[in-house]
Amino acid sequence: MPLIHKLPRWVQDYQRNNLAGDVIASIIVALLLIPQGLAYAQLAGLPPMAGLYASIGPLLVYGFVGTSMPQSVGPMAITSAMTAAALTPLATAGSPHYLILAATLTLLSGLILTGLGLLKLGQITRILSLPVVQGFSAGTALLIALGQTGSLLGTKWQGDTLPKLLQHLPSALAQLKPGTMILGVIGLLLLWLAGSERLSQHFARLRLPIKPELFSKILPLIMLCLLASMINWLNLTQYSKTLGPLPSAAFDLQSINLNSEALSNLLAPALLIGLAGFLQSITVAQQIASHKQQYIDPNRELLALGHCNLAAALFGGMPVSGGFSRTVVNSNAGAHTPLAGILSALWLVLALWMLLPYLAYLPQPLLAATIILATTKMISWQQFRKAWHFDRRDGTAWIMTFAGVLLTGPMLGIAIGIGIALLMYLLRSQQPHIAVVGRVPNSEHYRNVLRFQVETQPDILAIRIDENLYFANINQILEKINQQLANHPETKHLVLILSAVNSIDYSALNALQSWHNTLKTMHIELHLAEVKGPVLDTLLHGDLLSELSHPPFISTHAAMQTLALSCDSDYTI
Amino acid sequence: MPLIHKLPRWVQDYQRNNLAGDVIASIIVALLLIPQGLAYAQLAGLPPMAGLYASIGPLLVYGFVGTSMPQSVGPMAITSAMTAAALTPLATAGSPHYLILAATLTLLSGLILTGLGLLKLGQITRILSLPVVQGFSAGTALLIALGQTGSLLGTKWQGDTLPKLLQHLPSALAQLKPGTMILGVIGLLLLWLAGSERLSQHFARLRLPIKPELFSKILPLIMLCLLASMINWLNLTQYSKTLGPLPSAAFDLQSINLNSEALSNLLAPALLIGLAGFLQSITVAQQIASHKQQYIDPNRELLALGHCNLAAALFGGMPVSGGFSRTVVNSNAGAHTPLAGILSALWLVLALWMLLPYLAYLPQPLLAATIILATTKMISWQQFRKAWHFDRRDGTAWIMTFAGVLLTGPMLGIAIGIGIALLMYLLRSQQPHIAVVGRVPNSEHYRNVLRFQVETQPDILAIRIDENLYFANINQILEKINQQLANHPETKHLVLILSAVNSIDYSALNALQSWHNTLKTMHIELHLAEVKGPVLDTLLHGDLLSELSHPPFISTHAAMQTLALSCDSDYTI
Repeated sequence: MPLIHKLPRWVQDYQRNNLAGDVIASIIVALLLIPQGLAYAQLAGLPPMAGLYASIGPLLVYGFVGTSMPQSVGPMAITSAMTAAALTPLATAGSPHYLILAATLTLLSGLILTGLGLLKLGQITRILSLPVVQGFSAGTALLIALGQTGSLLGTKWQGDTLPKLLQHLPSALAQLKPGTMILGVIGLLLLWLAGSERLSQHFARLRLPIKPELFSKILPLIMLCLLASMINWLNLTQYSKTLGPLPSAAFDLQSINLNSEALSNLLAPALLIGLAGFLQSITVAQQIASHKQQYIDPNRELLALGHCNLAAALFGGMPVSGGFSRTVVNSNAGAHTPLAGILSALWLVLALWMLLPYLAYLPQPLLAATIILATTKMISWQQFRKAWHFDRRDGTAWIMTFAGVLLTGPMLGIAIGIGIALLMYLLRSQQPHIAVVGRVPNSEHYRNVLRFQVETQPDILAIRIDENLYFANINQILEKINQQLANHPETKHLVLILSAVNSIDYSALNALQSWHNTLKTMHIELHLAEVKGPVLDTLLHGDLLSELSHPPFISTHAAMQTLALSCDSDYTI
Repeated sequence: MPLIHKLPRWVQDYQRNNLAGDVIASIIVALLLIPQGLAYAQLAGLPPMAGLYASIGPLLVYGFVGTSMPQSVGPMAITSAMTAAALTPLATAGSPHYLILAATLTLLSGLILTGLGLLKLGQITRILSLPVVQGFSAGTALLIALGQTGSLLGTKWQGDTLPKLLQHLPSALAQLKPGTMILGVIGLLLLWLAGSERLSQHFARLRLPIKPELFSKILPLIMLCLLASMINWLNLTQYSKTLGPLPSAAFDLQSINLNSEALSNLLAPALLIGLAGFLQSITVAQQIASHKQQYIDPNRELLALGHCNLAAALFGGMPVSGGFSRTVVNSNAGAHTPLAGILSALWLVLALWMLLPYLAYLPQPLLAATIILATTKMISWQQFRKAWHFDRRDGTAWIMTFAGVLLTGPMLGIAIGIGIALLMYLLRSQQPHIAVVGRVPNSEHYRNVLRFQVETQPDILAIRIDENLYFANINQILEKINQQLANHPETKHLVLILSAVNSIDYSALNALQSWHNTLKTMHIELHLAEVKGPVLDTLLHGDLLSELSHPPFISTHAAMQTLALSCDSDYTI
């Protein structure tokens, strides 16, 4: 790996007084990762152990190549659900072939992210807008939570879309048994209570040497252990199935085969999973970094996450990404450097060695409850209302992505989201604003005639264009100008004010040029004013400038003064 | 059809003196449509007659619902090639099932266009930029011309992508026979000569009552008849296969079945073919209309082209669109109103009745030559060089679309083109420009400190943002501002000048808000200046404005004056 030609800076600059925080954070994150890893692996259709394997390698790798200090890499709910959605059509969940496909998917995802990073395309991944990301997360979270409800209540309820879930609802309901149901609901309630704000505040008053924010993460872990012990002790496992012995997920690295079939089936899912994971990672990393005034390089993060996925693939794991809540826990627990992550990995190895027999006693419904509690936090109508209130288009993007995910699943859902984000941006720039302007009396300022009391001249029409000119809006802008020309039939000079035009593309320039020819047949002279430097540079590559009778005017006022003089002289002739 | 609730305006306002032009144009266009219809039907994999059927209905319909006076609707090269690309994977070309699929495709395309028109989405179809349209046309034209070379030289050379064509090249070469080859090449040369500019100029000197531009269209038609007669008379048909008797393409309207299988296979191709056809139609219509100062309503044109395709489907035809060269011929030949198109349809019916037996004697290689001559005109390196010279990104879009079409065929090619156009626009707005500005001495003007001699104040940083703020560029803009803040560590007040910001989306506003929180921790106060009306309206929906210590300043100068005073008072305290 070319990235590690020397020890990372944080190792060289390591300060002793950071050690305590890093160690404590590493223990808490490792404890958190055990149930999360087991649960998310099951969500992805993999043997529980795959989730733990997928946690160790990436944590070690990220410590050496990542740029975010507290980032905690590992399996996440959304990428796990996407993995299941991508692979269940190709193989039976949990089968050896499924394991190989999962590792191949992870490998491809790692290669794609690394490739994007090497090409320095960190910015190109920003093709999802906030409403789309929120709608996607909420929709996927809802699907996951609904799917886990089956496991929670001890019945089989499967489906990666809402229609499929509804279709299987009757048979799932028929399988319900009162005992398992009651136990599942009680477990969910107790875990929810243990993680509630109010309980955390009570504990915070005890003035323990732990940050108050951490209680809501640690208490559910303790509750999980308590409940698991009780269920096993009271012999309630007939009502609440346990994980059972955890065989090491049989995986042979050489069985990964990047043949053309694997590529054609897995390339698109790998890209989308990689993209979704990276978006999550970079968002968390940048949010935490901005509060500490640290800088996150997106290209470097792409490389880091790519390498993490390669490491996950080597161990027969599943796609990994930085996760919001785990990273916040790590940061709040005192992690100052990536040493915390590296230590977490070591604790996990230790835990696998020592605790493995005990993990078998973890009840499945409790793991399902953990996932449900984590994902329902991501479903926020408040977010939708805010986006809708801000702008109907943003709200529409939110709800359409949400509905797209519910109806077609997370995999197609994110693709729909990308399309919607782009479409919304096009729609936004396709309602370009132009304003006929006139002179504010006794000044050099020119303002919209509709909003201000201004002076105009009958034979000179001055129009300000308030949008960048490009293929998708140029025709509408020209139509609007034509309408204004029709409203001002005496116009002999048309002045286009380009102060708010930041770019002109080739299509727009060509449309302008052929429109200019039409203007000539109407005996209207075209002038430009307040052209920005970069736009002027672009215009110099086309023929329009050379066809104008006058070079672009430095200001609207200069244009109006010069043209008024020339019109006067026209009259005197 | 709800559109025809009364006679169109051109019928009500018809002027007698337009009649001669309309009649002459109608005859010329009908003559042109016979070989074009036959050839394009074969290109689409359909029996030759399907092309003639597809011409009659649409011409009649367009006369009543279209808005372009000289538009000539019918089969076109690119949509025909796309039809073949869409259908050959589903059925054997020319088989009854293939005919039904073609009619279904045409029907779907008509329904989609009509639907888009009813939803008034005429503008949304402008998602292709000029370089993409040009690259797509050139690539498709090259594929068509190469494919027709086989028919011209009397050998079988098939494939809808360049790799497939290359793969079949050896077997095609092996089948070549000298006689057919020589005859094909001679036919191509003579047809090219008949259509050449130079010959037209010679004829123009004869001062016949025909526009000079029309000779290059009429002479090849005469040459085609001459060559066909000679080949049949000299009994050379063993070297140059003729069409043979033209059975009416057996088609039963009721065999169209819009079941879910047809929908899933044909919906995407129908959308892309409809889009490609509409783009061609609207471009031609608007170009001709702009010279005559007429107005073309895109939504009305969508409806019209949609109805034309529905009409084509009824007759068992193929997708139709307005074509560039045929419409120009129609216009140049004197067509003033859609009466010309309606008469063309009637001449075609007459021709089918009277000329049908003679069409059987048309040699296939000559039809291929007609297509080759028509399509090679669309392959222009000059276009690519111009786009590349204007802007590397536009040139890249051109060549990537061109290559995409050659490698994957016209169908996937246009989808690639749409993606590239959007990506290029995103890339363009992702290199946003910001400028630190200072005061031009003794004025109220503020300019870029890098380009002008201006005055700045150490504790006030004024930055002008030269781009709309949205999800894809907001992070880069904030990073650039952060860099400027790092370069100006004494900054206490940051003034963002938004004179060139025409819109802010929800993602950008949220990013601004969380960035503002970071600014607060750095004890830097944020101010806005020169916020446009629509942007201010948008900002009022968020929390940012209410968190500012001062409402947005009307001008940069006002901001600087006010802040300089407040800084002075800070010092005195």
